[in-house]
Amino acid sequence: MSDAASTTPQRERGIRARRQREAQRVHAVIAGVERKIPTYELFGEEGLARIEAAADLILEEVGMDFRGDEDALNLWREAGADVQGERVRFPAGLLRSILKSAPGAFVQHARNPERSLTIGGDAVVFAPAYGSPFVQDLAGGRRYGTLADFETFVKLAYAIPWLHHSGGTVCEPVDIPVNKRHLDMVAVHLRFSDKPFMGSVTAEERAEDSIAMARIAFGRAFVDANCVIMGNINANSPLVFDGTMSKALRAYARANQCAVVVPFILGGAMGPVTSAGAIAQALAETMAGCALTQLERPGAPVIFGNFLSSTALRSGSPTFGTPEPALGSLVIGQLARRLKLPLRCSGAFTASKIPDGQAMQESTMSMLAAIQCGANFILHSAGWLEGGLTMGYEKFVMDADFCAALHVWMRGLPLDDNAFALDAFREVGPGKHFFGAAHTLANYETAFWESAVSDNNSFEQWRDEGMKDVRERASERCKRLIAEYEQPKLEPAVDEELADFVSRRKAERPDQWH
Amino acid sequence: MSDAASTTPQRERGIRARRQREAQRVHAVIAGVERKIPTYELFGEEGLARIEAAADLILEEVGMDFRGDEDALNLWREAGADVQGERVRFPAGLLRSILKSAPGAFVQHARNPERSLTIGGDAVVFAPAYGSPFVQDLAGGRRYGTLADFETFVKLAYAIPWLHHSGGTVCEPVDIPVNKRHLDMVAVHLRFSDKPFMGSVTAEERAEDSIAMARIAFGRAFVDANCVIMGNINANSPLVFDGTMSKALRAYARANQCAVVVPFILGGAMGPVTSAGAIAQALAETMAGCALTQLERPGAPVIFGNFLSSTALRSGSPTFGTPEPALGSLVIGQLARRLKLPLRCSGAFTASKIPDGQAMQESTMSMLAAIQCGANFILHSAGWLEGGLTMGYEKFVMDADFCAALHVWMRGLPLDDNAFALDAFREVGPGKHFFGAAHTLANYETAFWESAVSDNNSFEQWRDEGMKDVRERASERCKRLIAEYEQPKLEPAVDEELADFVSRRKAERPDQWH
Repeated sequence: MSDAASTTPQRERGIRARRQREAQRVHAVIAGVERKIPTYELFGEEGLARIEAAADLILEEVGMDFRGDEDALNLWREAGADVQGERVRFPAGLLRSILKSAPGAFVQHARNPERSLTIGGDAVVFAPAYGSPFVQDLAGGRRYGTLADFETFVKLAYAIPWLHHSGGTVCEPVDIPVNKRHLDMVAVHLRFSDKPFMGSVTAEERAEDSIAMARIAFGRAFVDANCVIMGNINANSPLVFDGTMSKALRAYARANQCAVVVPFILGGAMGPVTSAGAIAQALAETMAGCALTQLERPGAPVIFGNFLSSTALRSGSPTFGTPEPALGSLVIGQLARRLKLPLRCSGAFTASKIPDGQAMQESTMSMLAAIQCGANFILHSAGWLEGGLTMGYEKFVMDADFCAALHVWMRGLPLDDNAFALDAFREVGPGKHFFGAAHTLANYETAFWESAVSDNNSFEQWRDEGMKDVRERASERCKRLIAEYEQPKLEPAVDEELADFVSRRKAERPDQWH
Repeated sequence: MSDAASTTPQRERGIRARRQREAQRVHAVIAGVERKIPTYELFGEEGLARIEAAADLILEEVGMDFRGDEDALNLWREAGADVQGERVRFPAGLLRSILKSAPGAFVQHARNPERSLTIGGDAVVFAPAYGSPFVQDLAGGRRYGTLADFETFVKLAYAIPWLHHSGGTVCEPVDIPVNKRHLDMVAVHLRFSDKPFMGSVTAEERAEDSIAMARIAFGRAFVDANCVIMGNINANSPLVFDGTMSKALRAYARANQCAVVVPFILGGAMGPVTSAGAIAQALAETMAGCALTQLERPGAPVIFGNFLSSTALRSGSPTFGTPEPALGSLVIGQLARRLKLPLRCSGAFTASKIPDGQAMQESTMSMLAAIQCGANFILHSAGWLEGGLTMGYEKFVMDADFCAALHVWMRGLPLDDNAFALDAFREVGPGKHFFGAAHTLANYETAFWESAVSDNNSFEQWRDEGMKDVRERASERCKRLIAEYEQPKLEPAVDEELADFVSRRKAERPDQWH
């Protein structure tokens, strides 16, 4: 191992170079990333056909409930499904036929056009974690999330180029009434970031408000013709869409905006304990939800979503980042490709309460499955802790750093003449070092990915710098990113109209706290 | 998330069940594991052929040095290579032709026949990390390794069923003279474990001693006909085998024992900074080393080894678990399969000094690449820290736990009727939980992998149990494994003969300390 690392001038040059690179990065625009390596194919045609047949059987024989949404039931009836009460059963082939109108890829526009994202094909989008009531940092520990936390996470996601998307409920701002949070959240996404974002789904009117605010920012005609906002719609697994969700789903589709349709299956609770069954169930639920968007508005953008997890035998607690759901994601990816729909997967999953070794081992396993399965939109790419109950500041920075690594990983390995470096072998020959070779000097700057939080220095240097673990380094980086944050420009007229909309809506409604 | 976790009787039952399972596990025999999922194919025929052509060009045009080993040069001369001084150049096709006599798979026998391992095909073997001068634990920090540490790691590898192999120099016992360590190490492997193991390679006589001790344990005729010991031979990259290594390599081959041939390439130092070139170089060096075993004794077992890493721009320090070497491993796997040779990859790589989030993120990325590339023998599966300078006790336990997860992952997903659980869907129906379903009760015990060190409990329970991170839990588990260790039986006559051999050899030689 190199002790050259500890020579002071070299180190100082290194630190200066790093600071310069980071300064350049802060406002870098990376509008998604293209996966240039193949997907990982777990099953062949026969296995996939068996899973599809099981999903079809569940849909036809057991069916699904659409509860408290008469309009949805009418749409199903008109489409040819067997509707009895709230139970809907789907003749073989019906959903696949409906899904043909869904786009295989689309663009989610950002208010800064340079940050607009392709969703589908080989494009991959990293978005922050979603929905945690708690937040956590090294100094403050775990506490309820507030609007101030929400704003800080939006700023962080804006500042980190490896996150392409601002996300949605990056944490729950529990200091704001539950029926008004969405107004503040959408306003923060639009004000403190110019990356694409997600709106509310927790009630039809909140979905409508979110879309209305998007119309203020983008213009009504533009929104009618283009996707500018997403809603993340969970099925009430097993085999139920409740009215809140199906109405929000239809609100997004009606406005030509993207619904992400996600079965929420913890095996053993909302689905069977065996993966093949859970995957068939997920396919059934997602197909039904995605098809409903097409009945509401054919051609509306929709994402095939995936959220599989397992449970611990000891306690019944959910587990995350374990092998079974990672395998499940690989299969779900294959199924989504056969449906020609963009795929959402979950990223940096963990059940750990803190960003320790458990957290990063589970998150890495889960994230790699998301990449390898061919996911196009990876929600929960950064910050997730405690099975989604906590959004962690240091975890956010550590996960985002891994997203940077994945940018390099997805690029694959070039096989051009420069990459083969044959002249370097001729120059260096057996037994010599490549440090000074012309090829090394020409390629060194761009050769290897470099982490912003890992420590690769010598033990002695690491010791002399305080024996910090990666969480402490991530904490420092997090503070620096926040301190250096610069707000993107927003037209004052738009800003004002958004503020008016928020105040008006808030004034119209009494506070609800649960 | 479930609060059921905190009810006391349930928890106690869980803990009892876990202890029972663990007690059963301690002496469980898991003789390797079969990878039932496909390998991950990064390149197609064209890309692989280009890499092979580059390797052939390096071999033919630049050549390799075999330094200080006249016998090796003679073997090359006789085989038809172009030998000038110590430089050997290989006509196109020569090495591939020589390699045809190498077995595609073989058995490494353990002194307990139940622990004998298949090396090759779809078989996967996890072995501990190798070669660290330092050891580390939570209480004692980092310090030089001793024979006592060595013995403890051998005991741990024996006690953990997910490690199939006892490894080799699991840490350097620096309290023993450098020319006598191998005697104690081999004796410890044979005495405190009955899993397969590796011998010394640091001098020809130490390789011969290791093999002689194996003959004491297994019998001379058996050893001549069967593989019972391995030697891990590093190329002196770039493009050199020094005499120490090539003589040790030939000693193992001569005795019909397995040489693992491993280029040691840190990109930018011992190889070019671009991956395609480093991979071509690795292929060239490995083919030459593997072919030499076949010249020494056609049919001798040999393993195609892989050790790729990168360097940090800032400091010149080596980095581990980064994306480029992970991709490189995937390609190396494809190349090894085309040569029909068993493959060694490196597992839980990291540059971190402690088993923190960095360590586990890097290790997971690296280990998954090793599995997905189709490696048969995964050295450094447990314990590796600080780029291999330190062997960590808690890291050992954490990595071994991930090896357990990988057993499940490699099994893939069954697609039988039970797995599809269609009756469970019929029984449960929309909107109900699967907890009490007949299918759940029938499958729960075996359904999901469960970590021995992860915490999936509620935040409150985790807090009440002392807010431990995974390293603290691994430390507790490590102590328990050591306390519960039971020595496998060894025939007293063999034990005595080994002791005699060690004393005799030690007495014959003056101590050397470096």
